[in-house]
Amino acid sequence: MPRKIIIDTDPGQDDAVAILLALGSPQELEVLGIVAVAGNVRVAQNAHNALQILEVAGRTDVPVYVGSERPMRHPLVTAEYVHGSTGLDGPTLPAPVTPLQTQHGVDYIIDTLNAHAAGEITLCCLGPLTNIAMAMVKAPAIVSRIREIVLMGGGCFEGGNITPAAEFNIYVDPEAADVVFRSGVPITQIPLDVSHAMLTTKARVQRFRDIGNRSGVVTAEMLDFFERFDVNKYGWDGGPLHDPCVIAWLLKPDLFKGRQCNVAIETGSELTRGMTVVDYWGVTGRVHNVNYLRSGDSDGFYELLVERISRLP
Amino acid sequence: MPRKIIIDTDPGQDDAVAILLALGSPQELEVLGIVAVAGNVRVAQNAHNALQILEVAGRTDVPVYVGSERPMRHPLVTAEYVHGSTGLDGPTLPAPVTPLQTQHGVDYIIDTLNAHAAGEITLCCLGPLTNIAMAMVKAPAIVSRIREIVLMGGGCFEGGNITPAAEFNIYVDPEAADVVFRSGVPITQIPLDVSHAMLTTKARVQRFRDIGNRSGVVTAEMLDFFERFDVNKYGWDGGPLHDPCVIAWLLKPDLFKGRQCNVAIETGSELTRGMTVVDYWGVTGRVHNVNYLRSGDSDGFYELLVERISRLP
Amino acid sequence: MPRKIIIDTDPGQDDAVAILLALGSPQELEVLGIVAVAGNVRVAQNAHNALQILEVAGRTDVPVYVGSERPMRHPLVTAEYVHGSTGLDGPTLPAPVTPLQTQHGVDYIIDTLNAHAAGEITLCCLGPLTNIAMAMVKAPAIVSRIREIVLMGGGCFEGGNITPAAEFNIYVDPEAADVVFRSGVPITQIPLDVSHAMLTTKARVQRFRDIGNRSGVVTAEMLDFFERFDVNKYGWDGGPLHDPCVIAWLLKPDLFKGRQCNVAIETGSELTRGMTVVDYWGVTGRVHNVNYLRSGDSDGFYELLVERISRLP
Amino acid sequence: MPRKIIIDTDPGQDDAVAILLALGSPQELEVLGIVAVAGNVRVAQNAHNALQILEVAGRTDVPVYVGSERPMRHPLVTAEYVHGSTGLDGPTLPAPVTPLQTQHGVDYIIDTLNAHAAGEITLCCLGPLTNIAMAMVKAPAIVSRIREIVLMGGGCFEGGNITPAAEFNIYVDPEAADVVFRSGVPITQIPLDVSHAMLTTKARVQRFRDIGNRSGVVTAEMLDFFERFDVNKYGWDGGPLHDPCVIAWLLKPDLFKGRQCNVAIETGSELTRGMTVVDYWGVTGRVHNVNYLRSGDSDGFYELLVERISRLP
Repeated sequence: MPRKIIIDTDPGQDDAVAILLALGSPQELEVLGIVAVAGNVRVAQNAHNALQILEVAGRTDVPVYVGSERPMRHPLVTAEYVHGSTGLDGPTLPAPVTPLQTQHGVDYIIDTLNAHAAGEITLCCLGPLTNIAMAMVKAPAIVSRIREIVLMGGGCFEGGNITPAAEFNIYVDPEAADVVFRSGVPITQIPLDVSHAMLTTKARVQRFRDIGNRSGVVTAEMLDFFERFDVNKYGWDGGPLHDPCVIAWLLKPDLFKGRQCNVAIETGSELTRGMTVVDYWGVTGRVHNVNYLRSGDSDGFYELLVERISRLP
Repeated sequence: MPRKIIIDTDPGQDDAVAILLALGSPQELEVLGIVAVAGNVRVAQNAHNALQILEVAGRTDVPVYVGSERPMRHPLVTAEYVHGSTGLDGPTLPAPVTPLQTQHGVDYIIDTLNAHAAGEITLCCLGPLTNIAMAMVKAPAIVSRIREIVLMGGGCFEGGNITPAAEFNIYVDPEAADVVFRSGVPITQIPLDVSHAMLTTKARVQRFRDIGNRSGVVTAEMLDFFERFDVNKYGWDGGPLHDPCVIAWLLKPDLFKGRQCNVAIETGSELTRGMTVVDYWGVTGRVHNVNYLRSGDSDGFYELLVERISRLP
Repeated sequence: MPRKIIIDTDPGQDDAVAILLALGSPQELEVLGIVAVAGNVRVAQNAHNALQILEVAGRTDVPVYVGSERPMRHPLVTAEYVHGSTGLDGPTLPAPVTPLQTQHGVDYIIDTLNAHAAGEITLCCLGPLTNIAMAMVKAPAIVSRIREIVLMGGGCFEGGNITPAAEFNIYVDPEAADVVFRSGVPITQIPLDVSHAMLTTKARVQRFRDIGNRSGVVTAEMLDFFERFDVNKYGWDGGPLHDPCVIAWLLKPDLFKGRQCNVAIETGSELTRGMTVVDYWGVTGRVHNVNYLRSGDSDGFYELLVERISRLP
Repeated sequence: MPRKIIIDTDPGQDDAVAILLALGSPQELEVLGIVAVAGNVRVAQNAHNALQILEVAGRTDVPVYVGSERPMRHPLVTAEYVHGSTGLDGPTLPAPVTPLQTQHGVDYIIDTLNAHAAGEITLCCLGPLTNIAMAMVKAPAIVSRIREIVLMGGGCFEGGNITPAAEFNIYVDPEAADVVFRSGVPITQIPLDVSHAMLTTKARVQRFRDIGNRSGVVTAEMLDFFERFDVNKYGWDGGPLHDPCVIAWLLKPDLFKGRQCNVAIETGSELTRGMTVVDYWGVTGRVHNVNYLRSGDSDGFYELLVERISRLP
């Protein structure tokens, strides 16, 4: 029986590929719903983008919810400079024909967790953690009902990307991240340490194009756009494909290596705000709250991506 | 036409007197609903206490909602050492016969604001600001619909009470306070500077008892219990009656003196967390976001209280 | 036998009056030396000002040392907007004829403490605490040799003056203040709570002028200038005469009231940096490190000032 | 003409090897003096250790000064768990026969800089930066006289060692580091990113022993002891030889790679205190204040070490 997941996301080209990867893996994963959160672009656009990706994948049956418009405490910071003004710049995507759900995304998360058995639902978090933290504060009883949170965010051995110390998803809402990381829910964290090795080289992008299906072409076109920012910044051979690692870890955990350790979120200092402080070497006595992934097999990862996106329309 | 208010509260003996004062003033104030928040005691007990006070006042028509169980970021701190284990220690109150509303208090605030004209509803906040901030984060559009927020919390010239720098309501959820104080909604703040002058002397408590009605006797019995903590701490002639000042200001603003100034919330430092940093003398260039009350006429305040509680059963 | 004191100072009109008060009290106080510190104006000007005041008082035998040019960590902030460009604006003072000492003020403090018996020397601190903290870090053994530190700085019930939370002397070098307040040396703190009540009313200033001696006239002329800032800011009847309270407490401690309590210095937060967090009500369990004065007898204080300044040339 | 250097240090086995490397390179470097600072062990022991190493190298002509006993603000943290109780555990070293200088190390730094032409002296900093910062605060004019500061401390891509975010030297005195990094003096920083690649493998240690001279044997015995901590912690093939990289960079800068960027010191947050926040990718607009080395040629580094230690007794 497939694992039930809710995808919380701010698509984002890499979020979009993550959604396609999940939809291409129905034997392992059942996508109950998608919840948009403010992050890469504003939440309404993110929700719109999720609908578009579902239509590419022919899966308009998956409901899409609009979640939080703003972080828990600070004003919203967005990343159009990375993802383009729509968040999904690159391919030409038709306007979605299916409507958004009217329920607030935070309430959808709460109600869905309460409607299923405890420990049944995994949350896949591809953006800022606002929705998850808001749900935990509004309805603390859900905390014990979550099977696991698998999230893309933070970093340790790669520094940050939005500031020297902080990765974008955590930086946008560090208070939300703090609530989630202290919640006691089992967390698997895919940091920049992993995703910076998952580069969208020209050869890999070509493989998506070569699949020949709509999903493969859209993926290739999104990745062509997406790589520009990090290629310019780091001089790399392609851009880092962050968010699909979340889904890939659920499908093939052996592609990744890491360890249990403590991760704390910096919220107080302006200089290091949003940093995930990872006690990878166990020098503090703090509790192990995170399965922290440090590296991944990039060839195996792209192999998996191509295989699963091949199964989509 | 009376001003429409929602009372957000964690009763608390002084919250209870504030509710009675509002209910005794139907020509000026229409209490649309009461929302409980975690604070003096846990939220379920606070909601229960609100129902009990409504029954004392014979106003079981006012709906009571259960709001946030916990602050936005930090674990809950409570104050049974001040208010007793029930939060309303002192009088013997019967178990309430009316039920709580099932809607979450945060959603009640959002829906009620949306169901009324913009600028129609005033929020009276007698506890931590969790519910208000959660509503603002979940539904930012409500911010512009709030007429005004009148709140008890913080201080400047009296220092704090829970720590040297912080007053209890703000200390419990400084991130929520920060959201509210930065929201742009007009705020009137009743700080410890005001409430520490509103002492429950024996003569004043006796006046409530002498009214002879149920509400007066319950008030007297609550205040007998309530004064104990601060009398011991400060050596005062009675305890400071904090929360009724919120309602009193709505009824008779001339009882109080203050000025427009900037108030910022300290959230970063452990030492000063939850402090309301009041620029009373205008030494910073920061925007005036608060009508900060610095003093009040205590005799006039108790006169008002006695008069209005006399009108209740 | 008079108590041996070193005056650490950044004169400043009120510092100057403090120095005159000490010099006018030779039976009680022996001024071993004066050390200038960067504060109200730059350190070289402060040292120059100290020489000028000594010449007014006819006490060119008292050596003056130049101490720290800058705070321990942050760039220097000065207060010419209060004290005028020289720091001693008001009277016309001749250029000093005696030279400054060549030894660094920090080393003078260290050497003098080491050259006297332990517990013999009291430090009177009228400016930022840079010199004292630098001496403690450079030569930790002096800490146990200091009899007592009596300082003007900080506040609690009056808020700050340079920011809403911080008083100028502490704000300029909070790290130094932190070192001093944690040192274990007995400290008596004269805060704004005391000095804001010591107003230079016109009648009081006239009394200095009426003494008829040079020191009285200079005092009157300095106070005429000095009051302008706070009269404008607070609407008071005169300016607050901060620093002479340090000397007055040594001469007549009964003029002041206060208590032993914990005082901690905020150094981490930008918003509250330099605040003295005073646990006046004992709500934390922190050690009592300070004799915190909360109020003083202003008439008695000015009586003392007039009497002692009358004894000078 | 050799470059004039002052070595500021808390030896420490790796500090000791750095000193030997400098002394073995008289054509390039003239060691004017060595100043001890509190760090790995207490300052008196560190000064004693410096004398011992000078005797091993037959260079008792180099003067050794005792510097700061304690950090600028926080209590001292030491690292006997890494270096052993003497700081130089491993070899048996005779008691030193030459005495320490009596001048305080901070004053030696100030006076020596003032006695030489501006831009003539390079400071090599192998421990906490207390002495350097104290000198800069006490005598700000020296800042413009320093040619360059080359220091071991901090890290970015390797995280910290004493805490998840901080390296030991910076963590012990972050306020001092902040003063130095903001001073405007040209800084070359050798971080953990470099030193963690300079492992004391068994083969490399054997090469020191095989030199056959006293300095080589002492080096081998020190490194045998020193490696234990990090071998156990990281599972590495040897320990990281931090401090000699400072001298190696002066001798052969081509062994290292890095770039100009901004480095800021975290002092405010308890969680990340002492972190060097390195803007390696230039995402902030902050000024480039540091030549940050990111990697080094470990074989070339050990080649250099063996060659130069071979020249010593």
